[in-house]
Amino acid sequence: MTPSSRPVSRRGLLTGGALAAGGTLVGAAAVAATRGDASAPASTPAPGRVPVAALGEAIEPFHGERQAGVATEPQAHAAFVAFTLRPDTDRAALGRLLRLLSDDAARLTQGRPALADTEPELGLLPARLTVTFGFGPGLYAAAGLDERRPPSVVDLPPFSIDRLRPAWSGGDLLVQICADDPITVAHTQRVLIKDSRPFATVRWVQQGFRRAAGAEPGRTQRNLFGQLDGTANPKPGTPLETAVWVPAGPDWLRHGSTLVVRRISMNLETWDLLGRTDRELAIGRRLGTGAPLTGDAEHDEPDFAALGPDGLTVIPDFSHLTRAHVTDDRFRILRRPYNYDGVPTADGTADSGLIFASYQADIATQFLPIQRRLAERDLLNEWVTPIGSAVFAVPPGCPEGGWVGQQLLD
Amino acid sequence: MTPSSRPVSRRGLLTGGALAAGGTLVGAAAVAATRGDASAPASTPAPGRVPVAALGEAIEPFHGERQAGVATEPQAHAAFVAFTLRPDTDRAALGRLLRLLSDDAARLTQGRPALADTEPELGLLPARLTVTFGFGPGLYAAAGLDERRPPSVVDLPPFSIDRLRPAWSGGDLLVQICADDPITVAHTQRVLIKDSRPFATVRWVQQGFRRAAGAEPGRTQRNLFGQLDGTANPKPGTPLETAVWVPAGPDWLRHGSTLVVRRISMNLETWDLLGRTDRELAIGRRLGTGAPLTGDAEHDEPDFAALGPDGLTVIPDFSHLTRAHVTDDRFRILRRPYNYDGVPTADGTADSGLIFASYQADIATQFLPIQRRLAERDLLNEWVTPIGSAVFAVPPGCPEGGWVGQQLLD
Repeated sequence: MTPSSRPVSRRGLLTGGALAAGGTLVGAAAVAATRGDASAPASTPAPGRVPVAALGEAIEPFHGERQAGVATEPQAHAAFVAFTLRPDTDRAALGRLLRLLSDDAARLTQGRPALADTEPELGLLPARLTVTFGFGPGLYAAAGLDERRPPSVVDLPPFSIDRLRPAWSGGDLLVQICADDPITVAHTQRVLIKDSRPFATVRWVQQGFRRAAGAEPGRTQRNLFGQLDGTANPKPGTPLETAVWVPAGPDWLRHGSTLVVRRISMNLETWDLLGRTDRELAIGRRLGTGAPLTGDAEHDEPDFAALGPDGLTVIPDFSHLTRAHVTDDRFRILRRPYNYDGVPTADGTADSGLIFASYQADIATQFLPIQRRLAERDLLNEWVTPIGSAVFAVPPGCPEGGWVGQQLLD
Repeated sequence: MTPSSRPVSRRGLLTGGALAAGGTLVGAAAVAATRGDASAPASTPAPGRVPVAALGEAIEPFHGERQAGVATEPQAHAAFVAFTLRPDTDRAALGRLLRLLSDDAARLTQGRPALADTEPELGLLPARLTVTFGFGPGLYAAAGLDERRPPSVVDLPPFSIDRLRPAWSGGDLLVQICADDPITVAHTQRVLIKDSRPFATVRWVQQGFRRAAGAEPGRTQRNLFGQLDGTANPKPGTPLETAVWVPAGPDWLRHGSTLVVRRISMNLETWDLLGRTDRELAIGRRLGTGAPLTGDAEHDEPDFAALGPDGLTVIPDFSHLTRAHVTDDRFRILRRPYNYDGVPTADGTADSGLIFASYQADIATQFLPIQRRLAERDLLNEWVTPIGSAVFAVPPGCPEGGWVGQQLLD
């Protein structure tokens, strides 16, 4: 079937009076004026046709005590956009910028075009869009508020495994854009970057993906090594609450979090030379099920003391599982990673990897100990290389009429 | 909800006897051996949980008279991979390469890992995967068969609007990989590139996207200008049959087609400066509905003679609609484009555009006349620039046990 054969079941949506009367309204205003038609009965799909599905129209709340995009079930597509503030962007300018971007996000996440949207038709399908803001180390000084910077929101200490590139590192302001639809992500990225221009330049953009929405519901994400990734995340309820959200700390950060974004290049060439058993020893888990080598199911507790017939521990000391393992929920991190897959070289060498993104209440007590253990001795280091690194505080959410960051910047 | 909270409803799939017994089977063989478990009753999802959905497991046929990925309803994600043959890749080597790639495609499209698959777990969800092969101008000479090259499968003549870059142009062999899941596309790209290494180098890879599967079923694709794109495609049935498939011609190309891939950079910066009315005049259609300026609905026939109150034609002569319009179904082309969105520059200038892909029975009589009219006078040229161009013959499909291209190369 070709696209032309399909009925346009929501045609009424954009053919309201305003546009039909001669197009005197422009852009977003015109669309907003006719948006009300969506509640009118849609034209009936032809027999056998699929009606407009829920996926595109699914909405995540924007306003609230906490920002969306953290505990939100990960969407299929993401763009992480890091900005460098222009030299004259001070506290007042930051306030204007965050008011503007919060308003854009509040509209687009609810399926309404941004106020200055020049492609308003691309703003109508939120597909669970979330826009999450993070404040990097340089933002506080720019605002004259360095004393309110959370102490652990500072460039991570260097690790011997790092091969960091400036092009993928740092950033004063982060916008994490996630949705189940890639056009929605592209359009939101465009709108937010345009509205940031007077205040900031683009430092880096990292675009990534997970399984498509609905492709494999109820499964942990796999990365491009074929590994399940995210098994050890804190469980919903108290474990997640404790691990991710700042309970007290600086007043402006209550109900906030912190975010570490690291670009991890994965060397598929050498990984693919490794046998299956060796891979599973490096990971400490079965590739197929994600079960620890001492268990049967993904979420079985690993038994690090269990010995094999050779007298060695079944799960090797140097395995990723052993080194990353955290038993106390307070010290877990919420990993919310995305895969990236760039253009390979002429000889077919892949440019693949992971946009590692972890949320935790405190970087120093949760992320860093794990990272130190991994950097010190993790067999996986043979095949992965951190090439980018950035840290951000994630301010709390905002109520309707408010804006993200006002607790700090207003 | 975090991933860890969700049940692994198909856990049984990869925990069959072979792996549990000690992992003596390796890689694809191990997975294939346990694949049969999929037909066993899956563990029951917990109450309120979504069971494994159809999207990831949906299958497009690989074997058949015609290749899939042409008339197939476009999937959400695509990678176009163009190869340059190595100097010693002759007819016999091409036969080996196409046997190998056809076997990979036959397996992966049906949800089975490739024979040499090193990440077999990534090969289990086809998500409507199609792999479509195209033979570029250089392939025939390499095979010593230049006299069998279809005459119009040759570099397109230069157009004044072109700013072609070698990095996005040409190619001896094309593999078009499409699926509704981006991990499936990435994995398939990796497998096919690895298996091509002895025979070819990677010339270019273009990755693109459309709306996510299920986001907006029954609608024509929108590009990043916000335009509907594909309205004028030939309708299924006789129009599509006539336009796309080679009825006779060279024997080996019967039930084949031809493919033009052009990378079209879209200048969002200048497009966004344009008012809505001017955009619609440039396109000749309403942005919202895609209706011609003389009609109400997307598929209304445009009335190029209709005059406005100012005495000018309502649809301007220089509009994209006027220049691209084809009335005779035999001369239509099947556009199957994907959007691309790269990393913007520091000042926020977008790297966005379209991977224009059109299928037609004959490039000379169908694609070229349209392209000539557009290059000569199409107001859209102000905002779009072709930066890549490549042409391919699309051989017929193959039966089970056969391979794509055998009619030419065997």
